[in-house]
This record gives sequence, C-alpha cells and structure tokens, in this order.
Amino acid sequence: MRIAFIGLGNMGAPMARNLIKAGHQLQLFDLNKSVLAELAELGGTISSSPRDAAQQSDMVITMLPAAAHVRGVYLNEDGVLAGVRAGTPVVDCSTIDPQTAREVSAAAAKQGVDLADAPVSGGTGGAAAGTLTFMVGASDELFATLQPVLAQMGRNIVHCGAVGTGQIAKICNNLLLGISMIGVSEAMALGNALGIDTKVLAGIINSSTGRCWSSDTYNPWPGIIETAPASRGYTGGFGAELMLKDLGLATEAARQAHQPVILGAVAQQLYQAMSLRGDGGKDFSAIVEGYRKPE
Amino acid sequence: MRIAFIGLGNMGAPMARNLIKAGHQLQLFDLNKSVLAELAELGGTISSSPRDAAQQSDMVITMLPAAAHVRGVYLNEDGVLAGVRAGTPVVDCSTIDPQTAREVSAAAAKQGVDLADAPVSGGTGGAAAGTLTFMVGASDELFATLQPVLAQMGRNIVHCGAVGTGQIAKICNNLLLGISMIGVSEAMALGNALGIDTKVLAGIINSSTGRCWSSDTYNPWPGIIETAPASRGYTGGFGAELMLKDLGLATEAARQAHQPVILGAVAQQLYQAMSLRGDGGKDFSAIVEGYRKPE
Amino acid sequence: MRIAFIGLGNMGAPMARNLIKAGHQLQLFDLNKSVLAELAELGGTISSSPRDAAQQSDMVITMLPAAAHVRGVYLNEDGVLAGVRAGTPVVDCSTIDPQTAREVSAAAAKQGVDLADAPVSGGTGGAAAGTLTFMVGASDELFATLQPVLAQMGRNIVHCGAVGTGQIAKICNNLLLGISMIGVSEAMALGNALGIDTKVLAGIINSSTGRCWSSDTYNPWPGIIETAPASRGYTGGFGAELMLKDLGLATEAARQAHQPVILGAVAQQLYQAMSLRGDGGKDFSAIVEGYRKPE
Amino acid sequence: MRIAFIGLGNMGAPMARNLIKAGHQLQLFDLNKSVLAELAELGGTISSSPRDAAQQSDMVITMLPAAAHVRGVYLNEDGVLAGVRAGTPVVDCSTIDPQTAREVSAAAAKQGVDLADAPVSGGTGGAAAGTLTFMVGASDELFATLQPVLAQMGRNIVHCGAVGTGQIAKICNNLLLGISMIGVSEAMALGNALGIDTKVLAGIINSSTGRCWSSDTYNPWPGIIETAPASRGYTGGFGAELMLKDLGLATEAARQAHQPVILGAVAQQLYQAMSLRGDGGKDFSAIVEGYRKPE
Repeated sequence: MRIAFIGLGNMGAPMARNLIKAGHQLQLFDLNKSVLAELAELGGTISSSPRDAAQQSDMVITMLPAAAHVRGVYLNEDGVLAGVRAGTPVVDCSTIDPQTAREVSAAAAKQGVDLADAPVSGGTGGAAAGTLTFMVGASDELFATLQPVLAQMGRNIVHCGAVGTGQIAKICNNLLLGISMIGVSEAMALGNALGIDTKVLAGIINSSTGRCWSSDTYNPWPGIIETAPASRGYTGGFGAELMLKDLGLATEAARQAHQPVILGAVAQQLYQAMSLRGDGGKDFSAIVEGYRKPE
Repeated sequence: MRIAFIGLGNMGAPMARNLIKAGHQLQLFDLNKSVLAELAELGGTISSSPRDAAQQSDMVITMLPAAAHVRGVYLNEDGVLAGVRAGTPVVDCSTIDPQTAREVSAAAAKQGVDLADAPVSGGTGGAAAGTLTFMVGASDELFATLQPVLAQMGRNIVHCGAVGTGQIAKICNNLLLGISMIGVSEAMALGNALGIDTKVLAGIINSSTGRCWSSDTYNPWPGIIETAPASRGYTGGFGAELMLKDLGLATEAARQAHQPVILGAVAQQLYQAMSLRGDGGKDFSAIVEGYRKPE
Repeated sequence: MRIAFIGLGNMGAPMARNLIKAGHQLQLFDLNKSVLAELAELGGTISSSPRDAAQQSDMVITMLPAAAHVRGVYLNEDGVLAGVRAGTPVVDCSTIDPQTAREVSAAAAKQGVDLADAPVSGGTGGAAAGTLTFMVGASDELFATLQPVLAQMGRNIVHCGAVGTGQIAKICNNLLLGISMIGVSEAMALGNALGIDTKVLAGIINSSTGRCWSSDTYNPWPGIIETAPASRGYTGGFGAELMLKDLGLATEAARQAHQPVILGAVAQQLYQAMSLRGDGGKDFSAIVEGYRKPE
Repeated sequence: MRIAFIGLGNMGAPMARNLIKAGHQLQLFDLNKSVLAELAELGGTISSSPRDAAQQSDMVITMLPAAAHVRGVYLNEDGVLAGVRAGTPVVDCSTIDPQTAREVSAAAAKQGVDLADAPVSGGTGGAAAGTLTFMVGASDELFATLQPVLAQMGRNIVHCGAVGTGQIAKICNNLLLGISMIGVSEAMALGNALGIDTKVLAGIINSSTGRCWSSDTYNPWPGIIETAPASRGYTGGFGAELMLKDLGLATEAARQAHQPVILGAVAQQLYQAMSLRGDGGKDFSAIVEGYRKPE
C-alpha cells in the first residue's frame, strides 16, 4: 500500500521502518533531512510537503510532538488536508489533547476524510520492536481499515470509541500511572525509613491490594526489579519530561471539562519540581529520589 | 492447644470461632459480655482479665482497636504481661503504629516473652471465612511456632521480618492502596467527563501501565466490576473510616521518621473530608463520589 | 476624547458609563443589543464592528471574558487591528493569559499600534463606583497616555512593566489569594474544632504572623467580619468560578513556564471540586464550607 | 516573687534572665549544668528537681521542647506536681499539643493547682529582648495573676480562653503561616519565571488582596525586604524544623479532631521534603528555594 508517513522522530522513524519492512511503499515527510535520507535508502520516497505526501498515498499516518505541530501539518496551506483525496483513511498517532484531535478530525470530515487518533504506548523500544500499543479513536469502519496496518507496528490495537477517545484513554491511563508511581515511591521510601527490607515489602505489596504495574513491573526502588530503569540508574524507559507532558494534557483537559483531579494535579507538580531540579531527562520512576536523602 | 484470645470485636470474634472449630481450647477476654457468652457456648472459657487468660494458656493472641488498647491489655496491672509465663508465644493482630508494637515487644522481652505483631487484611469476610492475610513481624523461631495456628484463621501467612515489620508492611501497603484508589477514581471520572465509555477505559487501564488492584478488582466506578462495592452502593467492603485510620498511622509514622509522603498526606485529607461529609461508613472506594456531580 | 469601548458585560458596561459621565464620546460594540441601547441613551454611539469602532476613535479599550474573545476582537477580519490607525493607544482590560496578551500586542506593534494589558481587580462594585485597580503592562509612554483615562474608571493605576506584566501581576496575586483563603479556612475550622472561640482566634491571627487580607478583611468564617460575604451567606463578592478561572490561568501559565506551583495546583482543584458540588456561584470564601460538617 | 523556672534552653534561659533582671528570685532547674551555673551567677538558685523548685516557689514556669518532656517534668515522681502547693499559679510556655496541655492541667486541678498554657512566638530574639507574644489559655483569675509576670518577658500577653486555647491559637496561626509562606513563594517564583520584576510584584501584592505578613514583612524572595532572612542567606529567623514541628502538631491535632486540613498537610510535607534535602536548619522562608533552579 502507498502510505504517507509524516513525522520521523524518535518514534516515527522506527515505526516507518517497520512499515517499509512489511512491504509498503512510503511517502515520507519530515524537516530533518538526514532521517529522510536514511529511510529513503531503505526504499521510502521523499515528499516535498505533507500535502505532496498525502496526494500520492492511499493512507496517511502522522506522528508529531504536540498539538501545534498537528494543526500545522494538517491545516496549513501545504498540509495533509490540502492534498488528501476524499475517502483516504488517515490516522494521527501523536499524543495531544482530545479537543485538538476532534477539531482536526472535524476539519477532515468536511472534505470527506475520516481521521482517527491513535496515540501509542511502549516507547522507542516498542516502536523499534513493533510491539507498541495503539489506542484508537475511530469509526468502526475506519478502525477495521487501519487495524492491519497498525498491527505491523504494534501488538495491541485497541478500539477506544469515536475519534478523540484514543487520546482520552491514553491521558487517563497515564494520569493514573503518574500517581501510582509516586504512590509506590512513597510506600517504598516509608517502609525503608521504618526499617522493613524493601524486597520483602515489594513482595507483600505485589501479592496484596497495593499491587500495580508501578510496583510489580517497574518498581522505582533500585534492586527490586532487575529489568526496571531503577536498577540501571534511571536511564532508558519513559522520561520524566514525557510524563510531565502527559500529566499536563490530562490536567488541562480536566480543567476544560470542569473536572477535579486532585492527586493528578499534585503529581504533575511533583514531576515539574523534579524537572526544575534538573532530573527531567531521567526515567519518570526517578521521582523516588525526592523521597530519599541526597547522597 | 490452650490459647488466650483477647479482643473479640468484629474481627476477633470470627477469628476465635475458627480456632475453636479447629479444636483449640480458648481462654477468652473482652469487655463485651454478650460476645463472651456466645463464644463460651461454642466451647471457650471466659477469663476475668487478660492476665488471667494469659496465665492459663500456652499461646496468647490479641486483636484490639488501637494502640492505647494494646498498651492497656499488655501493660496494665491485670494485663497479659502480668500473667504470661516466660517462653509463651504471643502475637498481637491489632493494626497499630510500629513504634508501639516494638515498645510492647521490648517490655515482653524483659520477662523472656517473645511477642510478634501480625496485623491482618481481608476484613470481616476474611475473618469469618478463615482467609485472612497475616503480615507477621517476628523472629524466625516465633514465626515457625505461630504459623500453623495463624493458618487456621488465614490463607497467607507472610513473614515480614523482625517485630514491627508486620505493621510496617500493612501501613505501607495501605498507604499505596489509599492513593491508588483515588488515582483510579480521578482517571475514571476524567475519562467519563471527556466522553469515553468507562468500561472500555477500565479495560484499557487494566491491560496497560495503569493496571492495579483498585482498578482491576475493586474498581470504584459503578458497573465495572460486578462483585465490587461500587456495584452495590458502596456497602460492605473496607470502610472509609478504616482507611482513614490506616492513613493516619502511615502519615504519623512518616512524621516520626522524618519521611515525606506527599500524596499519602493528601489522600488522608481527602478521606477525612469524605468522613466529614458523613460518608465515612461507606466503602472507601466511594471516594469517587467526590469527583462526580451530586445527584 | 473619542474612545472605542468593546465588551459591555458586567464589568465593561459600568466602566463605559463612567467614561461617558466623564465627558468622553464613546464608540460602543457588543453582541448584546440591549446593553448597547441602554448606553446609547446615555450618549454613546453604536458601532457595527470592533473595526468600525476603532476606526472612529482616538483610543481603544476592550473588556472581554477570555483569551479566545480577545483574539477574535483584535485579529478577525472586522477586528480592532483592521480599523485602528497607527499611533492610537489601545488597552485590553480583560483577564487572560500573559502569552496571548503578548501575542496580540506583537500583532498590533506590526502596524504601529502600541497595546497595553490592564486587567482589573475590584469586581462589579468597583467598576460601578469607579474604584477599580488597574494592573497595567505597557511602555512608559503608553502608560502615561492611558493613566488619566483609566483613572476615570479606577483608583489605583499601577504600572507593572512591559506588556503582559499586568496579567502576570494579577494571576500571581490571585494565585496567592486563592491559597490564602483556603489557609484561613483551614486555620479557622481547625481552631473551631479544637474549641477556641473563632473571634478570639481571628483577632490573634490578625495581630500575628498569620495576618492576611483573607483573614483581616474578608474572613471566611461567618460573623467575624460584618462586611464580608461570609456574614451574608456568601453572596456578592468574588465568585468561586472567577477564582477558578484565575487559578486556571495561573497554573496553565506555570505549566508553560515549567514552574511548579504545588499549593496553587491543589487550591485550583479544591475550587474545582467546590464548583462540581454546585457552589461555584457563591463567593470564593465559601470554600470554608468544605471544612465544616454539612448542616 | 519566688518563681520556679524549669527548662533553660535557647528560649527558657533568656526568659529566665529577664525575670532575674526584673528582681524575682528564681529557683532554676535544667539538665544542662553549665546554663544553671551561668544563671546562678546572675542571682538564681539551683534546684535539685522540678519538685524541689516548685516546693520553694510562689509561681511555676516551665519551657520545654515537647509534650513528652512536659509530661515528665509535671507528672514524674520528682515532678512539679509532687512539690507544688495548692493555689500556686503555674504556667507552661512549651509549644505542645492541646490535648497534653489539657491532661496535665487536669492532673494539676486534682490537687488544687490552676495550670495555664502559654506558648510564645517571637523566637530567641524576642526572648532576649523581652518582646515575646504569649498566647495564654487560662481561667480569668489565673490570667490576671500571670499577666504582670509574663509582661516582664513579653510585649503582647493575649488571653485566648480556657486552658489549651493558647496551644490552639499558636498551632492555628502557624498552620496558616506555613501555608502563606509557600503561597508567597509560589507567587513570587511564578512572577519571576513569567518575567515581572519581583520588587514590583511584591509591591502590588502588598497593596492588594494577596497581602500578608509572609509577603510584606518576611518576603522569601531575596532582596525584597532588607531585614528578612531571605536577604541574608536564610540565616536566623524561624527555623524550618520548628515550622515542621508546629505543622506536625497542627495536623496531628486535626487528625484527632477528625478535621481536614488539606493545604496544611501538603505544606507539612513540603517542609519535610526540605528537611530531607538537608535544609531544615535554614529559616523556613527558604522553602522558596524548591521553586527555583538550583545554582
């Protein structure tokens, strides 16, 4: 299939590579010339604009850093909507606010184009390995069309509802994740301060009502989970800046919906304070360092 | 075995019943005459004081509401330590602060008595069914002695370390639980406000990084988990007042240890506000009601 | 002077009235026909668009509900910037985010128009009485030009710095105000619960280090300050929804500036929860009701 | 007058010095021999125990670090209550929880002794200069008796109500103070990050609704108030550890009274985190450093 792929950053580039490997003919666009050149060598074709890429393709995929880029790539004069043919399936994999996702989708609908939002989780590792989770907001028909292609880049392709619900699912999950990670950090640090062995404590929590992914799979305390970032100096993993971005999307969406998210707002502030201290580049589980005496 | 059982409230009485059923000879003490009479009919013997009960027994078990009662029952003139013989295994199943647990244990040690703390989880249902979890702080030797008896009242008998660590394990787990439940409440309420189907959202969370017991087993949103209190008007389950008590123990222990627990402190306050509104008798998952428009 | 006045709501209408009284010739625009008619009777002239109003005037004043309206009124095809002559002094009295204030000012500067931001405090009472405080972000020259006109609508005309600083001053002050009011509420409610006379407590606070405007002038506890909204059922005053809006502006500006505001974020959530309970129309000092047993 | 003065630490010693200067005959007790020797040189008499000191005196004053010391000094075998004559006025100037104050007072009342609580504010500087504020919980009669003596150590002698209300007044005021200081820190740091001159911002706040002691007298931003600790590296002043102690008393009293104090609990945690970072010895206004990029 001829697929326009726009946005070839840390996530987009490996995703595009997997589609090329799967035999698709890619129309590529990004502002970064070197990544374009690299993917062209693998067989992709370089486009001069999002419009140009969309014009040549039977499907459009975008993967961009933030809402402003999504607006630009779709709505600008040389944007996707200026080139895409009516009836072409379009999916935006960026993580942005649900409101923007719905607005861009509405603009697309005006010209007969059905646009899905499909933010991902799984990080750059999952993008390279083709094991991402896609949370898809789309009509049933569009979902059915997109599913096989997304499955070439990911393992779980989840249909969340109408357009926008992909974003909603992601920010709600990550709101909870950001809170849980701090909860685990506080529980582990308190246990340590009070004198219980932290491995024993983690074991008890993991077989009890405190059990959660942040404890049993990604425990922030060093030495509990060998494969977790905590056991390798908080490198790799899901950066605190990205968690901060997602909590920003969640609390801002909550504000617009007049919905309180009290612990979520505190969690956002704590990651913000971590970032201010200069630790935003670490894995988000390094939030636990604020609960321990500095060395 | 002759076992002194002191404290026959909502938890203690069914625990004692299970021991009687298992064939032990119980020396019972409580201030409530009617529960004593009831258990005497099943075969227990009524004692005139904790001291008296301890004097007659080869093991002592206590299950009391709070630290002040534990101090009284052990240290008063007619308390357990005034009657117990050196070498008798003693276990306090109350949920109290680790500091008091250690102090009472130290007092017991002075007279050659080895005392364990073994707070439980599982609620009155687990007490009746004999499926409690015991978190035991004890020497290896004492743990080995207590284990078979505790196993007649519970399913998981976990050795957490030296005396006090049972309490530590419980308050750290429940600190995390109290936070997680609010985190799930905020995520579900936000998703609902933004327009995603809450069952779909719960499904996504439960197979993603937000996964936790508060979401996949005890979800606070009505209709998600049929067996959860949320699906029966927040009745039964684990009362908000009990969660408030445990968060009080956790934050007070944190204060004494000079250990910050930021989300934990906010969580405590939110359950306190829920209690002030008159909802302390509901299951703790009713905290979600503060995130929804009142009906 | 011929002054365009655009935005004649609860605040704008009485402000315009004061300018008419002071002898100015007003070019009026609003979507509400009845308020236009009313002000026309006092001597104002009705314009067909912001552009039209600006074209006819030697100064432009706008007073609008939110950033989206400000963008529209200034930047639309029939907006202020389409009509205003180079060199005309322009001032926006809306309370919006500093970023939008700066962007609209930059757009004006491109056509030789110097635009100030001048959000106000003092409420509808102050607008009617002409006793508002204006926090003005403007060049020295523009401030000197605007000052005499603003002084016909207000009592304190404060120069905060370059454009945008008016908004910054307002949201920083109100961030602190929103926090202080909750702080006073908690101190008063705690004192009451512990058994001190609340008038005595307020007296001590007001002559000690807890002293603040929220305690000595606007105390949220009923019966402490006769003239405060707390003593008349939390009517009148500064509505909780407005405080919520300002805290939203503050926390959103903080997010964009990567600046933590921890108590500010919690305060925002608490006013949000108050609004969800249906109390957003009350004076913001009614936040204290969440700290008392419901009657 | 013969006055027993027990507890001669950083606060007690200068207070005792002022009473000696005023011509009283002091019966001194402390565990620190060197301070006893020093005060004996000024004319005080050294006692062998609190009981001994009380026996020799017409009034008893105590100034101790925490509730445990107060219990010991009053209730031990060689404590004040073992020596004091019925009818002797007694006042405890320690800052402790209201509950302990009331319990010790009740014990004193059983033997005909009327005991007041009178915690102070003003720090070691105020103690030396004799300018402390005393918040007194006492019967009218006892207050009248104590007032002239307290006035020799302080400037404001405030009658708060019955015994215990002195402590309540102090912890409620300091709860608010701890919150306000963080509120000012957030407002100043946000203003600075957004680009307003901090002196201008402080000026606006101080003449507006954000006005408070933490801003207009003790501003945490360096260079705003010349005499504030912020302008001398956060030395001197009111140590963060003391604020942490007082917030601990306030939140613990709130817990026992089932009273939520949400911002108060967060404030306590933030000072706790500051202490964990190693900054507990600085003035409490150094909390602002957590809101700025570390240098």
